[in-house]
Amino acid sequence: MSTDNLAAVLRRPGEIVLEERAVPGLGPDDVLVRIRAVGVCGSDVHYFEHGRIADFVVESPLVLGHEASGVIVEAGTRVADLRPGQRVALEPGVGCRRCPACRSGRYNLCPDVRFFGTPPVDGAFTRYVAHPQDYAFAVPDSVSDDAAALLEPFSVGLWATRRARLAPGESVLVTGAGPIGLCALLAARAAGAGEVVVTDVNPARLDVARRLGATAVLDVRTEPLGQARLDAHVLLECSGVPAVAGEALAALRPAGRAVFVGMGADALSLPLPLVQSRELVVTGTFRYANTYPAAIALAAQGQVDLDALVTGHLPLERTADALRVGARDPHAVKTIVTP
Amino acid sequence: MSTDNLAAVLRRPGEIVLEERAVPGLGPDDVLVRIRAVGVCGSDVHYFEHGRIADFVVESPLVLGHEASGVIVEAGTRVADLRPGQRVALEPGVGCRRCPACRSGRYNLCPDVRFFGTPPVDGAFTRYVAHPQDYAFAVPDSVSDDAAALLEPFSVGLWATRRARLAPGESVLVTGAGPIGLCALLAARAAGAGEVVVTDVNPARLDVARRLGATAVLDVRTEPLGQARLDAHVLLECSGVPAVAGEALAALRPAGRAVFVGMGADALSLPLPLVQSRELVVTGTFRYANTYPAAIALAAQGQVDLDALVTGHLPLERTADALRVGARDPHAVKTIVTP
Amino acid sequence: MSTDNLAAVLRRPGEIVLEERAVPGLGPDDVLVRIRAVGVCGSDVHYFEHGRIADFVVESPLVLGHEASGVIVEAGTRVADLRPGQRVALEPGVGCRRCPACRSGRYNLCPDVRFFGTPPVDGAFTRYVAHPQDYAFAVPDSVSDDAAALLEPFSVGLWATRRARLAPGESVLVTGAGPIGLCALLAARAAGAGEVVVTDVNPARLDVARRLGATAVLDVRTEPLGQARLDAHVLLECSGVPAVAGEALAALRPAGRAVFVGMGADALSLPLPLVQSRELVVTGTFRYANTYPAAIALAAQGQVDLDALVTGHLPLERTADALRVGARDPHAVKTIVTP
Amino acid sequence: MSTDNLAAVLRRPGEIVLEERAVPGLGPDDVLVRIRAVGVCGSDVHYFEHGRIADFVVESPLVLGHEASGVIVEAGTRVADLRPGQRVALEPGVGCRRCPACRSGRYNLCPDVRFFGTPPVDGAFTRYVAHPQDYAFAVPDSVSDDAAALLEPFSVGLWATRRARLAPGESVLVTGAGPIGLCALLAARAAGAGEVVVTDVNPARLDVARRLGATAVLDVRTEPLGQARLDAHVLLECSGVPAVAGEALAALRPAGRAVFVGMGADALSLPLPLVQSRELVVTGTFRYANTYPAAIALAAQGQVDLDALVTGHLPLERTADALRVGARDPHAVKTIVTP
Repeated sequence: MSTDNLAAVLRRPGEIVLEERAVPGLGPDDVLVRIRAVGVCGSDVHYFEHGRIADFVVESPLVLGHEASGVIVEAGTRVADLRPGQRVALEPGVGCRRCPACRSGRYNLCPDVRFFGTPPVDGAFTRYVAHPQDYAFAVPDSVSDDAAALLEPFSVGLWATRRARLAPGESVLVTGAGPIGLCALLAARAAGAGEVVVTDVNPARLDVARRLGATAVLDVRTEPLGQARLDAHVLLECSGVPAVAGEALAALRPAGRAVFVGMGADALSLPLPLVQSRELVVTGTFRYANTYPAAIALAAQGQVDLDALVTGHLPLERTADALRVGARDPHAVKTIVTP
Repeated sequence: MSTDNLAAVLRRPGEIVLEERAVPGLGPDDVLVRIRAVGVCGSDVHYFEHGRIADFVVESPLVLGHEASGVIVEAGTRVADLRPGQRVALEPGVGCRRCPACRSGRYNLCPDVRFFGTPPVDGAFTRYVAHPQDYAFAVPDSVSDDAAALLEPFSVGLWATRRARLAPGESVLVTGAGPIGLCALLAARAAGAGEVVVTDVNPARLDVARRLGATAVLDVRTEPLGQARLDAHVLLECSGVPAVAGEALAALRPAGRAVFVGMGADALSLPLPLVQSRELVVTGTFRYANTYPAAIALAAQGQVDLDALVTGHLPLERTADALRVGARDPHAVKTIVTP
Repeated sequence: MSTDNLAAVLRRPGEIVLEERAVPGLGPDDVLVRIRAVGVCGSDVHYFEHGRIADFVVESPLVLGHEASGVIVEAGTRVADLRPGQRVALEPGVGCRRCPACRSGRYNLCPDVRFFGTPPVDGAFTRYVAHPQDYAFAVPDSVSDDAAALLEPFSVGLWATRRARLAPGESVLVTGAGPIGLCALLAARAAGAGEVVVTDVNPARLDVARRLGATAVLDVRTEPLGQARLDAHVLLECSGVPAVAGEALAALRPAGRAVFVGMGADALSLPLPLVQSRELVVTGTFRYANTYPAAIALAAQGQVDLDALVTGHLPLERTADALRVGARDPHAVKTIVTP
Repeated sequence: MSTDNLAAVLRRPGEIVLEERAVPGLGPDDVLVRIRAVGVCGSDVHYFEHGRIADFVVESPLVLGHEASGVIVEAGTRVADLRPGQRVALEPGVGCRRCPACRSGRYNLCPDVRFFGTPPVDGAFTRYVAHPQDYAFAVPDSVSDDAAALLEPFSVGLWATRRARLAPGESVLVTGAGPIGLCALLAARAAGAGEVVVTDVNPARLDVARRLGATAVLDVRTEPLGQARLDAHVLLECSGVPAVAGEALAALRPAGRAVFVGMGADALSLPLPLVQSRELVVTGTFRYANTYPAAIALAAQGQVDLDALVTGHLPLERTADALRVGARDPHAVKTIVTP
């Protein structure tokens, strides 16, 4: 094992510096992982550009990156089911294991959750990380390093379908065809959705959506949602644009379910008579919980093609460029940093 | 059986006329019921005063009243489980039995539902109604005529607790202590809620709430909800005042559920970051489905005291007065018309 | 429309007679359907051979056949959403619409359900049937007549996955690879199951299972289930062989769910310490409810290939032969009668 | 704080010896609790008499007792929400916090759960125990020490009602009126059950059941269950007598749910045609998870009277006598050891 632990550190908005850091120490329940692939997420880009997301402020140097996979190089003394050499996907958010949320299986709602690349917790744009064994999931050879990293954004989509109680054969409307919208599309298809309509204002993204299994796409600049006469069981809102919500909710049939995945809006004008007369169920998601085993099974069986999301690779040394691609290139879906 | 079928007919806003009408004919699956008690609902009052509720407009003479109980005087040829002399509670909204909503047990969402006292369907402020046998539920002697009528508003509360997935021991916030809020309180207590906090701006109503089992009450004119530091599992919004919603949602703990029961608001400003970071589940209710057997069991076992809601009785001839009491008397909870 | 309504009538065990019958009359909510395809089910074969299934005894001449599709030739006066010329799949079991089971969406449990080909209700081995409009489902061109008929056994599998609360990525054990086991396999795959292991004692059937998407198959004559060290979330028992149950339940992980679909056993020896220590959930299915829209969406989107189940066609005149094939040919999966 | 930590130690079947032991050391997340009340459970009695329960064998000296409450005398360095002087109920089974069961909120199914008084983990028949802070729940003054201890068996009943998805107004059959059956009765009533029928062969226990809220009781020596023509939504089997099961399941209506709480049977003859034709859901329980906050709320609000279960108190020095009472006195419901 190398003692070199190069890390791409966000010093201030717009400035990523490469630093040599110590390889992290290993607790008895931890594994030390040599990182192989890290996907760039819109939240990484946002921290990079603005230094904050809502109340999370980057106040000291921070390593970003939370969509990560790698290979185990060392295992702590109490680690039983993993061993050096094993390829793993890293679930980035570790709950406290003691609060009511953690104890009831909703550890994503833990007030003390520690999440890669979220101040003040360092992330995975680095060579080595130490991580609790139960948040490191062995992946089979049929899942590539890239796909293993992208189990993270896919988990966001999968969790959205769970919160929507999406059942096989139901019809789904996905608003927004960015990476999260595309992951929601993939998850909906994997869950047996019948019709899946995807909307966006970017034709390139809609093309990707079509390629990934959307049964119809809608460019809402020219084809307003309200005219499409949809009749969906489930809405997965992934655009983060509150103006979309009203029209999108109106596309739901009685007893329909809406999940607000996309972030960015402060408030949403909820059409209460509609919610009441159709008894719509509306919820939002915050990351995910207990998705990795299912996500791995779906990727391993070929029911979900996560590699299809990858549009570029860059080495760790070019992390800043990778973050800029995410911000500027309309054709980029997912850039992978390979430390 | 008398051939006299006196009915209190709404001719135009504010004008109720007594008419002799024919006793209704009886289909093979119907029972003919001599009405004994009809509760006055806020929606009756609204039709009486304004001649409409949202898109439902009173365009021809209409009999109001949908909280009804009575005694069977005749049974159709295919009626098996009911017989003349039996006391029954009438569930007022009859689904089409064929649409997807009806077939899946959510007949309250049937687009063709026929509901007592909702244009153009006549209601129960009359001596006799014919009603499908499966919407007429036998009640035991331990349930009074008044209580049998009030199974209807209680069903609204019970349905709200079901939609909230309220579990025993959970804490509940009920906003609004009108008849529906009080029914929600009764239903929450019957479902084993632990703490139940009720808010209103009317001290008389809050007194009733306390008497009916609220563990705390809050006069939100002087004690704003935001200062009360609540931490509830469930919100049952029964005030219909949209301004309440934001503060009320903030009182929910992670994974909390909010049910909007009260009507009247066009739109609600939903605090999306809160809904997402706590993964709150928000829904609305439209009447109820499949509540009567459970409601009767609760009333029969004494777990719910519906008679405690009754604050006055008036004969059919004074239906207009009964409707005016509902509108004007702050101490009135539920007036019963006795045809 | 022809006035000829040829029907294949079971006179006594083993004897099918062709009869000219009157074309059935049409109620206002019915459609008259020219039958195009009827799948042969094991229960048809059982009635044909033994004249009874449990308490259901063929006491007068009976038309069998309940897996049916066709084309509408006439529509009743109240039929709104269907018209002559439309191709439809027929859901064979019609609830009473009034009992508690029907009213709560579980019409398959209706004590008065009328089901095609179940004494004393005639089935679909005939040219014309009249059927309630809401039990006739329009199918798109992408669903063949055969596939439309086979939505019925597929519904059995789909319902089993619903009762199992099967979630995407979960692992499934299907015991028995007869038509129902294969439909359970198809439904599990459509619902996003990860690993799906199918067992049988017939290598030909296991080959079909593999072709239809099983990730592993097990010939339990040579590879006992107990040695396979499975760790499944869900068991779909489709063999009807009670001896299988104990071993199959032992293959479930904690909080696993078992659904007994296969019939034929009188009693099952349930290993209670296992059920308790793992909190297994065990249930049985009786037909299905509210599956057709979802099943059609899955077939229409190509997520389920029902045509792959068809191993032969025979005309109505050879219905008896079709029933004998089902009983005797180990390679036959599904024979279709084409009236 | 005393340094004396007297403990009642099971040396071999039938022999309890009092020993002075060291007061346990305190981890940073632990609280040290001076035990005040410990209920005697049937499993304690069974270990005392037989030295084993199924695969759990007492191979070295063991302190029994797992229904415990006390007062905090010291708090570890990371304990935030509890402080010395606070009265607490102790949840006896601590999960590993890392396995799939723990991570998904079903820590009662953790294969490495450590449970008071279960070999090789010592229990609470002693003066002091150290316990993780999140398994020690503060109780208000309205909950007595005895009641706080009895939150444990009540949790078994509460969990059974959760696993049964018991809804307000539903009817319940509880078979067996021992302490667990009585706790199931209390939980069912707290959850708003309508009719609750309790069966046993011991008239004294049936009297207690009636006093605790059973709406009917049945001495099945003279009134066989099969003759009682019950029609229950939920069965809570608490007798552990497998012969009861068949008849009890037959008392369930379509879509009914059965929960096997009582232990002792190796196998159960499950009437499969009944389970299938009514789509009954059958499960078993293993202890409980996430019940304490709800149980405390119910006890604190007076919706559950746990003190009514107590039939005697004995000091720690007479633990062996307390265990013998449980075994021999037909009128004893719950004996409390007070260290």
